[in-house]
Amino acid sequence: MPYRRTARPGALQATPAHPIHAYWGWTSSCSSAPYSEEMDGLARFDDEFRRKFRELLIWRRDVRRFLRTPLPPGLLDELLGLSSLAPSVGLSEPWRYIRVETPAVRERITAEFERANAAALSGLTGDRAALYARLKLAGLREAPVHLAVFTDHGTAKGHGLGRQSMPETLDYSVVTAIHTLWLAARTVGVGLGWVSILDPAQVSCILDVPGNWSFTAYLCMGYPEEEMDFPELERAGWERRTGVEQSILTR
Amino acid sequence: MPYRRTARPGALQATPAHPIHAYWGWTSSCSSAPYSEEMDGLARFDDEFRRKFRELLIWRRDVRRFLRTPLPPGLLDELLGLSSLAPSVGLSEPWRYIRVETPAVRERITAEFERANAAALSGLTGDRAALYARLKLAGLREAPVHLAVFTDHGTAKGHGLGRQSMPETLDYSVVTAIHTLWLAARTVGVGLGWVSILDPAQVSCILDVPGNWSFTAYLCMGYPEEEMDFPELERAGWERRTGVEQSILTR
Repeated sequence: MPYRRTARPGALQATPAHPIHAYWGWTSSCSSAPYSEEMDGLARFDDEFRRKFRELLIWRRDVRRFLRTPLPPGLLDELLGLSSLAPSVGLSEPWRYIRVETPAVRERITAEFERANAAALSGLTGDRAALYARLKLAGLREAPVHLAVFTDHGTAKGHGLGRQSMPETLDYSVVTAIHTLWLAARTVGVGLGWVSILDPAQVSCILDVPGNWSFTAYLCMGYPEEEMDFPELERAGWERRTGVEQSILTR
Repeated sequence: MPYRRTARPGALQATPAHPIHAYWGWTSSCSSAPYSEEMDGLARFDDEFRRKFRELLIWRRDVRRFLRTPLPPGLLDELLGLSSLAPSVGLSEPWRYIRVETPAVRERITAEFERANAAALSGLTGDRAALYARLKLAGLREAPVHLAVFTDHGTAKGHGLGRQSMPETLDYSVVTAIHTLWLAARTVGVGLGWVSILDPAQVSCILDVPGNWSFTAYLCMGYPEEEMDFPELERAGWERRTGVEQSILTR
């Protein structure tokens, strides 16, 4: 059965406006339209790519142990450019990023994490509390990159399409951008850790963001101390992965 | 600087318990631990993989125009197995899938979409309303696969870790699984469309799910009528993508 296949007009003639970046071989300007550079304007994926893509999913980790080595200049911007290829409801692109660089601000966030983490620990008892206390749940002091991510609930972009009955899809769009960033970072050996043990109101206050921005995630990024193909929480004995079959019903 | 690199013990000796699947070259049992089959137990990603990974992001689409061709037997289960490699807060794995196959149930969901879509249209006026009315926003009648996705807020898995101050991270975990499914599907030419123009309470009622399951997404899947490297909403003149730079602040 024939497909209609459509590449953006002009894709075949596109010439990079900037030097090809060493990592991905695409133009490094985030604002240039990020369309395909395939020779025939159509993407093809083969068994080898699928095998490696599965490896990428397997080796993605929630990283809490970072080297202090900084990222190469420009790499974070490139990764954020890739993350903006994520889907967004109504093409609203509601992701807002804050690079947290000021040491005093990082310190306030870290203190807030420690307060929230102590509160979480206080809700546990016995062996579970002891195990929780031994876990390392964030790499805030070592990670060279701190990135706070917000969802702009005030954006007019997208004209509200797709989110009248489910406004939370705006937040979900930002989550897919974070996940894209996560996978893209891993392809260049950069680890990402999602810190969720934070009070959103406190983080928004510390970072002084517009009132209609909702806090979505606080990310640590940097080169990981080690690479693993299984979750650190599994190694620590906190929880185990289970198969997906038991989570599938039919109606 | 030396990394400590860790592959799961036994990864080197792992032998597939089932025939290698034609698409990804991994064992088709979802319940077998999905660890790396790399020869040295460590994943490597090169420029060619990164280039193709970017192509994958570029060619992922929110698909609304499907062929009626069914998926090959077993493919959806394989894709759901891959989706379970997504991150989840505290390793809670809160994703719950419902394959909606009964024609009468699909019809009720489609009617509910049409009702919610008419309600959304009624909030618009003028040119924007006319443009909205022309958009095709779901492929519910053609897509061979209907998949409803829920978040289990009653799960004990993960022991609450990471979600005391941000319970919404449970929903966010499910969103990363959906995004993983989306990308994995695209690697085998299968399109996915996320239908959010639905009332969560109505969908939960129609599908008769446990009370602590929260509706996250309704997905259509199947082979797309056409492939595009830019959003359908952009082609239709609804909205345009913009660069990510203006969404990055520093503190």
